[in-house]
Amino acid sequence: MTASERRRQLASLLVVRGSGHSRDGQRRYPRWELTNQQLRHLLEQGVGGVILLGGSAEELRLRCAQLQAWARQPLLLCADVEEGVGQRFEGASWLVPPLALGRLHRHHPERAVELAQRYGRCCGRQARLLGLNWVLGPVCDVNNNPANPVINVRAWGETAGTAGALVAAFVRGCQSEGVLACAKHFPGHGDTSSDSHLELPLIPHNRERLEAVELPPFRAAIAADVAAVMTAHLQLPALDRQRPATLSPAVLTQLLRGDLGFNGLVVTDALVMEAISAHYGPGEAAVLAFAAGADLILMPADAEAALDGLEAALASGRISDERLTASLGRREQALGRCRPLPPAGPDALLEQLASLVSPEEQALAAELLDLSLEHQGNTPLAGGPGLNLIRLDNQLAAPQLPAMAPALLRPAAQGYRPVLLDGRSPSPWSGDAEAPLALERLGDGPVLLQLLVRGNPFRGSAGGDEPWPQVVRQLLAAKRLAGLAVYGSPYLWEQLRVLLPAELPAAYSPGQMPQAQAVMLNALGLQAAALEGGFTD
Amino acid sequence: MTASERRRQLASLLVVRGSGHSRDGQRRYPRWELTNQQLRHLLEQGVGGVILLGGSAEELRLRCAQLQAWARQPLLLCADVEEGVGQRFEGASWLVPPLALGRLHRHHPERAVELAQRYGRCCGRQARLLGLNWVLGPVCDVNNNPANPVINVRAWGETAGTAGALVAAFVRGCQSEGVLACAKHFPGHGDTSSDSHLELPLIPHNRERLEAVELPPFRAAIAADVAAVMTAHLQLPALDRQRPATLSPAVLTQLLRGDLGFNGLVVTDALVMEAISAHYGPGEAAVLAFAAGADLILMPADAEAALDGLEAALASGRISDERLTASLGRREQALGRCRPLPPAGPDALLEQLASLVSPEEQALAAELLDLSLEHQGNTPLAGGPGLNLIRLDNQLAAPQLPAMAPALLRPAAQGYRPVLLDGRSPSPWSGDAEAPLALERLGDGPVLLQLLVRGNPFRGSAGGDEPWPQVVRQLLAAKRLAGLAVYGSPYLWEQLRVLLPAELPAAYSPGQMPQAQAVMLNALGLQAAALEGGFTD
Repeated sequence: MTASERRRQLASLLVVRGSGHSRDGQRRYPRWELTNQQLRHLLEQGVGGVILLGGSAEELRLRCAQLQAWARQPLLLCADVEEGVGQRFEGASWLVPPLALGRLHRHHPERAVELAQRYGRCCGRQARLLGLNWVLGPVCDVNNNPANPVINVRAWGETAGTAGALVAAFVRGCQSEGVLACAKHFPGHGDTSSDSHLELPLIPHNRERLEAVELPPFRAAIAADVAAVMTAHLQLPALDRQRPATLSPAVLTQLLRGDLGFNGLVVTDALVMEAISAHYGPGEAAVLAFAAGADLILMPADAEAALDGLEAALASGRISDERLTASLGRREQALGRCRPLPPAGPDALLEQLASLVSPEEQALAAELLDLSLEHQGNTPLAGGPGLNLIRLDNQLAAPQLPAMAPALLRPAAQGYRPVLLDGRSPSPWSGDAEAPLALERLGDGPVLLQLLVRGNPFRGSAGGDEPWPQVVRQLLAAKRLAGLAVYGSPYLWEQLRVLLPAELPAAYSPGQMPQAQAVMLNALGLQAAALEGGFTD
Repeated sequence: MTASERRRQLASLLVVRGSGHSRDGQRRYPRWELTNQQLRHLLEQGVGGVILLGGSAEELRLRCAQLQAWARQPLLLCADVEEGVGQRFEGASWLVPPLALGRLHRHHPERAVELAQRYGRCCGRQARLLGLNWVLGPVCDVNNNPANPVINVRAWGETAGTAGALVAAFVRGCQSEGVLACAKHFPGHGDTSSDSHLELPLIPHNRERLEAVELPPFRAAIAADVAAVMTAHLQLPALDRQRPATLSPAVLTQLLRGDLGFNGLVVTDALVMEAISAHYGPGEAAVLAFAAGADLILMPADAEAALDGLEAALASGRISDERLTASLGRREQALGRCRPLPPAGPDALLEQLASLVSPEEQALAAELLDLSLEHQGNTPLAGGPGLNLIRLDNQLAAPQLPAMAPALLRPAAQGYRPVLLDGRSPSPWSGDAEAPLALERLGDGPVLLQLLVRGNPFRGSAGGDEPWPQVVRQLLAAKRLAGLAVYGSPYLWEQLRVLLPAELPAAYSPGQMPQAQAVMLNALGLQAAALEGGFTD
């Protein structure tokens, strides 16, 4: 084997990041998303996978075809579509976050398992129709820490048993469509209160605790024949005093391959994340991960440097030929499990895209929303004029709020004027801890409070410390709280609902998308507005 | 000829509205954008044109193919892409508004004419590559009323001579690419201070004045062989005491066909607009427009009712067979001028889309931005920490401000914290006319004021009366104005620049897109940030 063949083999184990948009200028995150020239060059060199973000369903379909045409081998094409392909690619199904099913599972386990399997099928089928062959889900982390800023409603459960039952169902559903799934983030990211995108969280638990809480969902996913496992950027001193899980032979080889018996693809989480890149060079990080037991290197900070490092490690014997052969074999085996989309002419392409969302998937999306809605107070919202106060993370990139979103239009039809708050708004705060909203600046009349919050509700990513319980008390004391809608975090809902009089119209939906708003506002007595739009159909 | 053949002929003269997105749920404006079922039914019945809005370049290309496949005849497929196809469809070129060239024309007429022709070529070439065959531009209205809320920077000039020279060049450029152009809004919408989307504006001028100001750009476009003219929803009592221009035989037949000798396609502006639909039923509006001399009926409020009305008018002799034959002939003739895109397989499709924006078009976009930038003060912006105060119409649907927009990232790199204002923000106003901004609520430090304003600056579509001159005086008095950037309205810039000390860094760009921000902020001394994105490439 020549050196260039060897480098080509190593390259096949890299997964680099591209935009779902076709043109360089459309990239949303140019730091992380390679240019077309870079992508094409790397794919021609043998790079074997691309993770994609951004663009509509149509763009993604064409993009995947383009990337596949640039490569001289079948690619692994993946995306973080944990909550339906429509979570990332406009036009596909966008489902409620998984934790909704985790909560349903408490009382209706069989129903929840059946829905999780349909959820996985929906992700897999639509991913395949758009050209992907690998869904980077399910999240197998047990969300037993409500303060977790990075997992939260992405998890399938708050207990090991629930998460395990549901992720296994998701894996079966997704993979039955000929698309690989990926259990993440091994060995368990649920009990952290810091964000590994920014720093390296520490999990202080011992092996017994890991066996009781963190590992069972991964065991369940492996038992369901999950094709891949993604590593976490976490410190677990009980397993490895020196290295984070992603770079630890104790975690990847001894625990995952040995004790858990996983023989599929092990892929790192993105090596560009600060938890890794702040401590290791791009070549060394790739070598350490591979030597620890990873097969695929996701988003190396520098693909050429990663290849150089791996090549040198192979030459020096730091990585054995057998390890390389084994990883190449696992990649081939995984590709063999995918059911590729047959080539399609323009007419077939149009037809496939037109039927991207099946009637069953529409019904699934609606059923999940209906099942997961919680509401109280049977009186409809009082009529306006009043204030429709909406809190969200970022108005500038808010797929939840298209111009014709129900959360805007329905209250407007009742005379409720919208005021939107995010981290870039002029301050709505008074400085008074007991009456934190500066109501005199926001407007008169009854207030419909709509909170779109997914992370830790009291350290929202946009607004810093946001005192919503005090706001609810303030509005109640002023007799101005007309209604409350919480979209996303069940923890915030639980904190607020106990403050409410029983008759006050209030509701919770785990989803934030327009369809969730429609279901929510129906419950609050606000009927469909004439011009509503932005639904997944 | 059977009744159904006759109805089919009439249907070919309708242009209905669809979304550029493929799925019903993605429609942004469900009131106006037909469902796929409606569209397909109408196209199968023989409806001959569709006006499209929304979606990316890729989506539009597939959408046009889909519509064409549903119809049994060649369609007229059009869009309001007055400022480059990227103004409406993400991924294509997005150019500065035409008035920028109108202003250049004062001092550099030949250069401006050459650029206007390249501008037209850019619109035409990219429209064709995406499946359109009709650009609904140029605007031929002379913007001699700075308070005009609906034309403003969309116009090619503030005098008849400039507008005429430039629209003719645009028409030549666009049509040289095998795509029809459309001179609008006949007989001239430049001197109105109300918005015909909402009410029926009145133009009090007599025929002599119209000959001097309003008509010359239309004569110039007609001399340049423009394929189509669009009517305006305006009252011109000097020409017709009874009916608005769109429905007036005096305007469409006597003036346009007779005096101006136009023998191409006459198309109405959208009949759903309030100026028409508030006064005439959907069938009667279509009949009156057709009887007045229009060939094509754009966006009838109800396509079936329009067809019923036209059919009855033909049967009763209210519309003659000759008129129908003439309109059908003009439609055929116009279609004959289009250069259809040859059918493309997936590979050719990818290649065409990959080369959607040519190097020449990239250079044109950049050249227009450079030429139209005005700036003063050669000191760079003072360092932060400070406040980056951005005023825009609507954060929720702001293609100008992707997450990585220069207007956000570059000031942030200098320590300027963004505060964004639109019509849904908590109030930034103090109530004090002399010091209107409530600075204590917005933050400390020097202020970079960035105003994205296109309509009448003092009745902004979002913020109502906005006292920007007083704000500039207030910030100057407080020694807190670090820099000023005006994007869009030259009239606002002219009002504000006279208030500024000569050394204060300040600039104006007619464009609002990320590329305009980059050029603007370069001038203010803010260098490119590492993560910038959202450019047309």
